[in-house]
Amino acid sequence: MILTVTLNTALDVTYRVPSLRPHTTHRVTDVTERPGGKGLNVARVLAALGHEVTVTGFAGGATGRAVREGLTGVTDALVPVTGPTRRTIAVVDQRTGDTTQLNEPGPVITPAEWSAFQETYEGLVAGAQAVALCGSLPPGVPVGAYAGLVRTARAAGIPVLLDTGGEALRRAVAARPDLIKPNADELAELTGSHEPLRATEDARRRGARAVVASLGPEGLVAAAPEGRWRATPPARLRGNPTGAGDSVSAGLLSGLVDRLPWPQTLARAVALSAATVLAPAAGEFDRAAYEELVGRVAVTGEVTAA
Amino acid sequence: MILTVTLNTALDVTYRVPSLRPHTTHRVTDVTERPGGKGLNVARVLAALGHEVTVTGFAGGATGRAVREGLTGVTDALVPVTGPTRRTIAVVDQRTGDTTQLNEPGPVITPAEWSAFQETYEGLVAGAQAVALCGSLPPGVPVGAYAGLVRTARAAGIPVLLDTGGEALRRAVAARPDLIKPNADELAELTGSHEPLRATEDARRRGARAVVASLGPEGLVAAAPEGRWRATPPARLRGNPTGAGDSVSAGLLSGLVDRLPWPQTLARAVALSAATVLAPAAGEFDRAAYEELVGRVAVTGEVTAA
Repeated sequence: MILTVTLNTALDVTYRVPSLRPHTTHRVTDVTERPGGKGLNVARVLAALGHEVTVTGFAGGATGRAVREGLTGVTDALVPVTGPTRRTIAVVDQRTGDTTQLNEPGPVITPAEWSAFQETYEGLVAGAQAVALCGSLPPGVPVGAYAGLVRTARAAGIPVLLDTGGEALRRAVAARPDLIKPNADELAELTGSHEPLRATEDARRRGARAVVASLGPEGLVAAAPEGRWRATPPARLRGNPTGAGDSVSAGLLSGLVDRLPWPQTLARAVALSAATVLAPAAGEFDRAAYEELVGRVAVTGEVTAA
Repeated sequence: MILTVTLNTALDVTYRVPSLRPHTTHRVTDVTERPGGKGLNVARVLAALGHEVTVTGFAGGATGRAVREGLTGVTDALVPVTGPTRRTIAVVDQRTGDTTQLNEPGPVITPAEWSAFQETYEGLVAGAQAVALCGSLPPGVPVGAYAGLVRTARAAGIPVLLDTGGEALRRAVAARPDLIKPNADELAELTGSHEPLRATEDARRRGARAVVASLGPEGLVAAAPEGRWRATPPARLRGNPTGAGDSVSAGLLSGLVDRLPWPQTLARAVALSAATVLAPAAGEFDRAAYEELVGRVAVTGEVTAA
């Protein structure tokens, strides 16, 4: 079982409107909603790949119930909280195709709720093959939260992937996670370097065992004890990048538990990410595209001398 | 007991953002939500005035549960449906104070759900002092719905107020409701006349026993078998007009069940409406302002010769 943690789950709502005009009234022509937050997105992709997945984090209120009801193919181990799970609203302008995003802040987590989560997490980690810690921290959760969760997983001998940014990332890296997956901005903020190869090595020195930086359409750069690689999609892709980063995390976890060598793991991650960009619905992936692309990802690099 | 009917209930969500800029991402700084739809707004004001109120209509999904949980001080007789109750999102730009509105269409009501509602309604009407039929029709409900609901109330000898527009209003007027409360646009669409005095008389000839037209800041114009009146607030008011029309309906119903003469009923409706514009939160009313204003509404008119 792979365990994904989403402390700031969301109900992701997408509205289509003919044209967004501020300070007017709009009739929404189409409404879709689904569970959101990075860890739930990662879990959905992992489940689609055939992995057994358990999701945890927080859910509360009517929106939390909607999130839980929308979970399919994964085991729900979300911890109930009093505050309502946040909504994110993506308003798609059908004229231009542009999206305007409105993100609620999320519920305030009480100290008792945070303690209850930590207890649940400890119990779940014991039965996991790998753990993913994903996304931002909701109000009330201490900024060192991920550092503690990394230590718990490491104490249990379970590999842990971390995908977050800012101070939460900086603190958690010092707890020596097995793998971090920053994007270019998060990596630059962590290391002070905008040069990805140098920055990935710097992030390793700060405590991460391996670093896979996602560089958007240019693919991935990886630095690990076993070597360094660059993985690039076969072509420039047009589509919706929403969720592409979460598909990278899913690909990395999938390769990790399947014990693939780094180049195959990175190819899986890049192909899943590309197939997510190509899918018509945000955050889904196009399986046929994935299967076609996975053999065509260019991976170059060097293995560390033994 | 006063019965209010809201076939297209809503979860009214208000977001505050520092500044709304299309095609960017916004962190919502403040979220409030409450039950919405005209009949629920009317019920809230009636309950605050001390009336016993029962609400019916449809509620479904997680949003429907949130609506039901948010009802206070009224008896919940909403009929469950499969489709989710719609949300309305009001995005308030804190820089300009302007509001951008996003309204979901509402669930499709099945024929079986519509039948179940009619049965519930018939049972509730029997115990009501007055009935209010408020707002738009959700998809799936026949356009003649309000006409049928008016006939049911009239057959039971219960006075019925109708607040809707368009074809639903046109059809229902022919079923001879006791009182309709159109705004200027709805009245003009019904009668073809933009002259309120003429239009209210025309609406009476089409079947409404009494007509109270709300003319925004200019107050109300009323035409009834007992006479014709104009009721005007004591001053031009600055504030948020959201819900002011629903407070007019509440004032009219309140006067009706308290058996007040028309001038006092109209004064109550105008003062409630003004106190709603003055309240800081949209759709609430400022009780102190109401009590101060109700004696200062100017009502002029003529009583029909016996």
